[in-house]
Amino acid sequence: MRRFELITLGTGAALPARGRYPTAQLLNVHEGLYLIDCGEGTQERLRAQGINFLRIERIFISHLHGDHYLGLQGLISSMHLMGRKAPLHVHGPAPLKGIIDIQLRASETYLRYPLQVHVNPDVSGTVVHTDHRLEVVALALRHRIPTTGFLFKEQPAPRGLRKDRVAEIPHYLRDAVKQGADLERADGSVVANELLTLPPPPPRSYAFCSDTAYEPELIPFLHGVDLLYHEATFTEQLIGRARETMHSTAAQAATLAREAGVGQLLLGHFSSRYKSEQALLAEASAVFPNTLAAQDGRRYPIAERTDVNNL
Amino acid sequence: MRRFELITLGTGAALPARGRYPTAQLLNVHEGLYLIDCGEGTQERLRAQGINFLRIERIFISHLHGDHYLGLQGLISSMHLMGRKAPLHVHGPAPLKGIIDIQLRASETYLRYPLQVHVNPDVSGTVVHTDHRLEVVALALRHRIPTTGFLFKEQPAPRGLRKDRVAEIPHYLRDAVKQGADLERADGSVVANELLTLPPPPPRSYAFCSDTAYEPELIPFLHGVDLLYHEATFTEQLIGRARETMHSTAAQAATLAREAGVGQLLLGHFSSRYKSEQALLAEASAVFPNTLAAQDGRRYPIAERTDVNNL
Repeated sequence: MRRFELITLGTGAALPARGRYPTAQLLNVHEGLYLIDCGEGTQERLRAQGINFLRIERIFISHLHGDHYLGLQGLISSMHLMGRKAPLHVHGPAPLKGIIDIQLRASETYLRYPLQVHVNPDVSGTVVHTDHRLEVVALALRHRIPTTGFLFKEQPAPRGLRKDRVAEIPHYLRDAVKQGADLERADGSVVANELLTLPPPPPRSYAFCSDTAYEPELIPFLHGVDLLYHEATFTEQLIGRARETMHSTAAQAATLAREAGVGQLLLGHFSSRYKSEQALLAEASAVFPNTLAAQDGRRYPIAERTDVNNL
Repeated sequence: MRRFELITLGTGAALPARGRYPTAQLLNVHEGLYLIDCGEGTQERLRAQGINFLRIERIFISHLHGDHYLGLQGLISSMHLMGRKAPLHVHGPAPLKGIIDIQLRASETYLRYPLQVHVNPDVSGTVVHTDHRLEVVALALRHRIPTTGFLFKEQPAPRGLRKDRVAEIPHYLRDAVKQGADLERADGSVVANELLTLPPPPPRSYAFCSDTAYEPELIPFLHGVDLLYHEATFTEQLIGRARETMHSTAAQAATLAREAGVGQLLLGHFSSRYKSEQALLAEASAVFPNTLAAQDGRRYPIAERTDVNNL
């Protein structure tokens, strides 16, 4: 079973609140580690989860409010001190590179690994990264400063060989058949791939939307994602405050989830004024029942649907 | 009893180590709060100590290695979000202002309180701040990048009125006599101040020296301080590594304490390679017995010597 798992390292909002750290999440896709936002204290949260920083390949920063990126400089520096050699890619708003560079210069740090900073695009749907595990697509969020969400789409798995037909495929051709090739027999006859294989499990997807006002333009991009993390800073009672600060209410997050037809909604970024997330969760669940309130240090695996694949 | 108390918020070195946060200390002088260095996570450490950030008047940053300042931007931002109105003064190396400003600009934060950044001087003995509670003097440390230690000297208290003479001083003249005035009687005769008062308790002092190689030029400035915090990154076995990285061994810290004749030595900034501080403490104590190994979240009060004052 290949892993596709979100770990919420920090689920709080701008002000520190007991029990909730500022935003940071780790996405594990087939044992490749992707960090999403990096609030202050992210290193410590990673340690608490027993995660080796050096395995992180790529970091996605949504925007430059402190609660979403102030742990980044320390993480970059720790990776250096721990002897990282592998390249690190950081995606973020345009000013991020200058912020990193001025601090590296002030500390006279010459990184022993290549650090590449990529600028977030303005337009939803832009592919910002592709590798053998996933494709990452930008989502233009609506906040006080330029803010980007990210949609992580698993690459399709190979097709599965049908148990009742596998014996007739020579070993050296099995990979090609999994990739969709027809089977050419020694006698020249051809067996169509569809007769030998079953479709792969459907690719899984995760979307991260924080911080943002209610933004219905995201709906087509979020259609059918398995798990949507959406900020829910306020209850409906403070919808005016949500508008002013360009945040969402829990019910707005749920409305987006419902309209996009996502599998599950995960709420976070609760204002520190709420001692408990119960009211936020209740308001969202009334609109979209399959809703969870995120907790720090929790794991949210998305299972691979192997029922459609007999491999 | 007027308070003069150090609280060690973080006593670790560059890499995060379980149980030790990066450098940050709070000095409470007569209920005025001064923050010394501000590693990542300092806000959380302050909360854990039950200290209201907003009471911090002034912050002293020694140098721009991340483990000494990466918590500052978040603290400045939290103070803003919590509605601070009082000015905040930050002392630090020359590049610090640019680092703060680029991040305020990127987040489009317009602070609601005045923030004044003062540049650390290059020369030991320079007075960087004076108020009614203390005087703060810069110490030129010897490290890989410009680094400044700080000597905090309590302002002298007023003299104490002698119990056996207080009755003969009219109430409205008592403050003047405490400040050193002679007493002029109604008949024109004069009583010398020394006959009416006792000397005040000796002013207390605290010196912060991190990070630095062994620097004997500090000795005259440290002469007789009550409490000296000095980094002790390595044991004697790694003295070569200490030289290369411009850090100190525990024995070097103790030698400085002994040569300066300080009251007590507090060691910190232990390399994360040491699971326990026992070896470092043993090496230092052999040179200077009155040595403690700092622990996170501990309070180190310096008592006022009221035995010399009968007020």
